[in-house]
Amino acid sequence: MARIGATPEGGVTRLGFSATDRDAQRYLADEARRSGLVVNVDPAGNVLMRRAHGPSTGRSVLFGSHLDTVQDGGRLDGAYGVVGALEVLERLDEAGVETALTPVAVAFSNEEGALFQQPFWGSLSLTGRIDDLPRDPRDLNGLSLREPLRLAGGDLDALETAAWPQGSIAAYLELHIEQGPVLERTGFPIGVVDSIVGRTVIDVDITGQAGHAGTTPMPGRRDALVAAGHIVQATERLAAERQLCRVATVGRLSLQPGSTNVIPGAVSLTAELRDGSRSRLVTAEREFLDEVALIGKQTGCEVTANPSLRIDPECADPRIRDIVATAASRLGLTHTTTPSGAGHDAQVMASAAPFGMIFVPSQNGLSHVPQEYTAPEDLVNGADVLLNSVLALTRGSAA
Amino acid sequence: MARIGATPEGGVTRLGFSATDRDAQRYLADEARRSGLVVNVDPAGNVLMRRAHGPSTGRSVLFGSHLDTVQDGGRLDGAYGVVGALEVLERLDEAGVETALTPVAVAFSNEEGALFQQPFWGSLSLTGRIDDLPRDPRDLNGLSLREPLRLAGGDLDALETAAWPQGSIAAYLELHIEQGPVLERTGFPIGVVDSIVGRTVIDVDITGQAGHAGTTPMPGRRDALVAAGHIVQATERLAAERQLCRVATVGRLSLQPGSTNVIPGAVSLTAELRDGSRSRLVTAEREFLDEVALIGKQTGCEVTANPSLRIDPECADPRIRDIVATAASRLGLTHTTTPSGAGHDAQVMASAAPFGMIFVPSQNGLSHVPQEYTAPEDLVNGADVLLNSVLALTRGSAA
Repeated sequence: MARIGATPEGGVTRLGFSATDRDAQRYLADEARRSGLVVNVDPAGNVLMRRAHGPSTGRSVLFGSHLDTVQDGGRLDGAYGVVGALEVLERLDEAGVETALTPVAVAFSNEEGALFQQPFWGSLSLTGRIDDLPRDPRDLNGLSLREPLRLAGGDLDALETAAWPQGSIAAYLELHIEQGPVLERTGFPIGVVDSIVGRTVIDVDITGQAGHAGTTPMPGRRDALVAAGHIVQATERLAAERQLCRVATVGRLSLQPGSTNVIPGAVSLTAELRDGSRSRLVTAEREFLDEVALIGKQTGCEVTANPSLRIDPECADPRIRDIVATAASRLGLTHTTTPSGAGHDAQVMASAAPFGMIFVPSQNGLSHVPQEYTAPEDLVNGADVLLNSVLALTRGSAA
Repeated sequence: MARIGATPEGGVTRLGFSATDRDAQRYLADEARRSGLVVNVDPAGNVLMRRAHGPSTGRSVLFGSHLDTVQDGGRLDGAYGVVGALEVLERLDEAGVETALTPVAVAFSNEEGALFQQPFWGSLSLTGRIDDLPRDPRDLNGLSLREPLRLAGGDLDALETAAWPQGSIAAYLELHIEQGPVLERTGFPIGVVDSIVGRTVIDVDITGQAGHAGTTPMPGRRDALVAAGHIVQATERLAAERQLCRVATVGRLSLQPGSTNVIPGAVSLTAELRDGSRSRLVTAEREFLDEVALIGKQTGCEVTANPSLRIDPECADPRIRDIVATAASRLGLTHTTTPSGAGHDAQVMASAAPFGMIFVPSQNGLSHVPQEYTAPEDLVNGADVLLNSVLALTRGSAA
């Protein structure tokens, strides 16, 4: 799978709904069919894999992740959980395991939203939240999703039929690399996710006054970059010192005009706050907005700050957490409870079903970069835990 | 002149050695010849204008500025001083004024260095400092200067013959807009420049560690933008609070990878320090480098800071300052002594001759933008002071 969209740096670029993404989807479907599984692509472009003969009950246990990556991403984010899910389904089928609930392996479409900038496209569609999706989705170049979605086996006009009936999903389970350093630092091979942190993204625009860097005296300057520097510090302090939220980051910043000898007249930046508690996120956002307004006053710059995204934190299901922890223990694998700092399809699935997540260590905590790496034995451990968890979940007591 | 390279925003884009710049040069030369003046273009592309009949002495008084602009610049920076110089020479000639020294109006080539990024090209050549110039100058697109210089009437292979003999220039005088707010704020129509501030440009590269903004805990982060924020503050404090130099600015900053949900792993920025005193500039640079190293340690980032440009401050000639001040007083114009915060051909000419500069107010202190503006009466006042100063300087006592 890592060969499809491989980059010279050893990573992968497989943007959702690109031709490369379709190649990966096709490769996955071919592999599944070769193993005798039944493959469907729903109108949203999600790939759903089932055993040819299953239980008569309509309720299912879904498990999987996504195949698309960010630009210059790694081999494992998403793809590991999909390949692991296919492997689990093949093992169940080979062994002729009888289940009370239907196991369904899934590759959600366009989780990252790197080309068509609507992340969680597939899981939002499958959970019936198409009101949260743009009506005429377009990519970074303004091209419509209609044709790429059709080529991927989907259908924009039938999107609402991708939704599963309420109650039809008994559980959702996602195997994923941690994308952070906690498991590696603490030495646990398995992380049992208890929550997925929420996320608030705030777009900040600073307007000062451009001017000649040599002729404009310091008193009276309205330097937008000086204001931005204060905002970067304030954002970091919000989490690092004041501990109002778990993490806080300014990841994007651009300035105008951007010449050595001109005072920056305008800066645009994005601050991102994450936390496992909704009320803490609300408090952190309010404190951030207050501080930004104060910085505007102090630097004489006009500052506008608009929250452009608010994603609520989601809690994993305690019963599924127990099942995952038990599966790990029986395999002789130590495990720790950990929140997920990154967003996942699981947090979207939370609106339709109880969910759980299994984490494996990320070397140096790196993700979304070509250096993304997990040792093979850790990958196998994670898949083993997934297999045993799916066995437990589909056994039939799940309600 | 402002029509040549006019932009829709009301400004001018007339990059040095572009076709537009040649149009301006040709227009200037045609105007001068129409008035009966003699026009020469030297091998560096400088336009030199003289009266047809002058004194027999070989010593000259030069006055002028440059015609080239920055991208999306204004109508006045440079062009005002050249047009004013031509006007003064025409008036002298019309009135049949006899001078002891030869008045020479000059339009220096490529002062801004916006396309071919060697500023002060013309004045460096005329003062014989071709060792300070690149041997094979190329523009932003990698094209050689050879052909554009030839089309402008110059000759790259004969560049050394553009140098004037030592002692042949008795004085250099430049009329220019202030490009800063001081004259407007204080209400003086004329500024008598006492010095041109020196300039130190320091390129700073910060290497931290990129990582997922959600999954990387705050402790242990090495966020290059947080380090950059501290450096922006430290730069401003250097001038605004610690007053180690006159002005200090970070005008350029770019970060990698620059995504909302990724911790910035690398930042590149440029800090610029200016002051009228060389020793103060040296101290400010040392303090800056010390502080930057400390910020690197405190933020866990690798920081390299390399001074890429050091231009010494230059003092105007006291006798020429007196002549300018007297000329203004006799015209009934109040005046104030002021340093020039911007660089000018005059500071290059300082190596070959005593110099002086005449400033007129800039509305809102703006320059290098389409909004660059000086009221017509202020422009006329400046030209009148230039005329009377040139009359005094060429009278013969200048030695």
